[in-house]
Amino acid sequence: MRLASYSLRGRVSFGAVAGDGIIDLRPRLARFATLMEVFRAQALEAARAAAEGVRPDLPLPAVELLPPLLSPEKILCVGVNYANREQNYGEPPKHPSMFYRAPNSLVGHRQNLVLPKISAQLDYEGEIAMVIARECKHVPKERALDMIAGFTLCNDGTIRDWTQHGKFSVTQGKNFDASGGIGPWIETDVDLTKPLRLVVRKNGEVTQDDTTANMIFSFADLIAYITSFMTLKPGDIIVTGTPVKKNSNPPSPHGERKEGVWLEPGDVIEVECPDIGVLRNSVVAET
Amino acid sequence: MRLASYSLRGRVSFGAVAGDGIIDLRPRLARFATLMEVFRAQALEAARAAAEGVRPDLPLPAVELLPPLLSPEKILCVGVNYANREQNYGEPPKHPSMFYRAPNSLVGHRQNLVLPKISAQLDYEGEIAMVIARECKHVPKERALDMIAGFTLCNDGTIRDWTQHGKFSVTQGKNFDASGGIGPWIETDVDLTKPLRLVVRKNGEVTQDDTTANMIFSFADLIAYITSFMTLKPGDIIVTGTPVKKNSNPPSPHGERKEGVWLEPGDVIEVECPDIGVLRNSVVAET
Repeated sequence: MRLASYSLRGRVSFGAVAGDGIIDLRPRLARFATLMEVFRAQALEAARAAAEGVRPDLPLPAVELLPPLLSPEKILCVGVNYANREQNYGEPPKHPSMFYRAPNSLVGHRQNLVLPKISAQLDYEGEIAMVIARECKHVPKERALDMIAGFTLCNDGTIRDWTQHGKFSVTQGKNFDASGGIGPWIETDVDLTKPLRLVVRKNGEVTQDDTTANMIFSFADLIAYITSFMTLKPGDIIVTGTPVKKNSNPPSPHGERKEGVWLEPGDVIEVECPDIGVLRNSVVAET
Repeated sequence: MRLASYSLRGRVSFGAVAGDGIIDLRPRLARFATLMEVFRAQALEAARAAAEGVRPDLPLPAVELLPPLLSPEKILCVGVNYANREQNYGEPPKHPSMFYRAPNSLVGHRQNLVLPKISAQLDYEGEIAMVIARECKHVPKERALDMIAGFTLCNDGTIRDWTQHGKFSVTQGKNFDASGGIGPWIETDVDLTKPLRLVVRKNGEVTQDDTTANMIFSFADLIAYITSFMTLKPGDIIVTGTPVKKNSNPPSPHGERKEGVWLEPGDVIEVECPDIGVLRNSVVAET
């Protein structure tokens, strides 16, 4: 099941994507105003039942997709989590690196990334994101995958020169409004018995291509680690790190292209995992 | 006006603190289920009108105070923001340092801080926190104070050894469940024409005592800086940094006592600003 939030003629709703269409779930799950409320109530099975055998109400291109969850409590991002990237950071990390993104920093599928006036260094990082199913703490690794409701894709877009503004956190460079993307939807049926492939294209050219087999900390590792100290809640999003970019030889510590090529208005970034979908965003200049 | 969230016999409500009592605002503002909703609707004047001339419904000790806002979108914290602390970090910073706390990391007034099993290094940092009044972006410094709805107090409690788990962010050490406190309430009527005093006591002994005159980045500076790249929303909380601790000679870079004295079960931390109130929390061991 692919669950999405969307806007249609100014009305925000949520639904299940079926082929090239979307089934409007809001009238069919009238007790929930948003997809976030469905997650909070752990009512995914009710959503599945409501969409079962129903013909799409709308063609997908008719709606404007939004970030799948509009107000998650937490968006936690993991840095430096693909092994070949790690070569450039010295010895392997003992623990994951973590930072935070605010909801406004991420736009939905086909919404525009914004190159701000105050920096020219908008960069992209394609990543797979987990969506948490239930409130949990102290989850053992062997039960961790049960805590995942589904997966979505993230462009963990970064204003590179602002990641060094603070003394000890990359917060600023990761939190510019509309600097990244998330979506197109949450896929609840992902087979985790084999690695997921992650491909990123800039203007059609493949710039990142790796699989989750190369993750330093697996999905289960991350959930076990994070819940060793903090409570995760339904709808929390964990963005799991980006592979090295191609044509970056050697890859620089922050994953940017060595030659310092940044995104410009008109550029198109696609983040694809065949088991999830494709997240596509174009860049526009801040007005 | 002092606005608080509280629990009484398992029912969560919110109200206005008047002297030693509390006026239950939930039945008087029936369209709002939580104080967060009052802030989102920018309905503080309605809250003030509802509390005007009303006798308290309950004595304050009868209720369990909770974090004043239970589900703020963002809790952004500023590090290294008092001038005499900065001496130990080398040259003055060009920009604020920023990190994030999740709501579960902060308990309310008189609720217990939890020393986790997996670390002995629970530390405290008393701070003043701003609560944002309205959605805002690109706020000029001279208009920034208009964006503040009120102030509360924060113990930005830290698991010191976990601040270095990640390569480039202190996220983990700042996000242990119940490692810090916030409250006791939001004071909306604070005179900002003179500096605010901030006093922190550990078991009755003053360990931090400073004024906002020593802040490197003022309240207005912080709002102007943050909104230069990200949108702030009603109810967002900005925790503005901690002064140097006394008896820490020289103060160490992370503000902990040089001798490595950490909090233990039974310790009591009070964070006081005379214009706001006193936030008091005791430490218990994780069970």
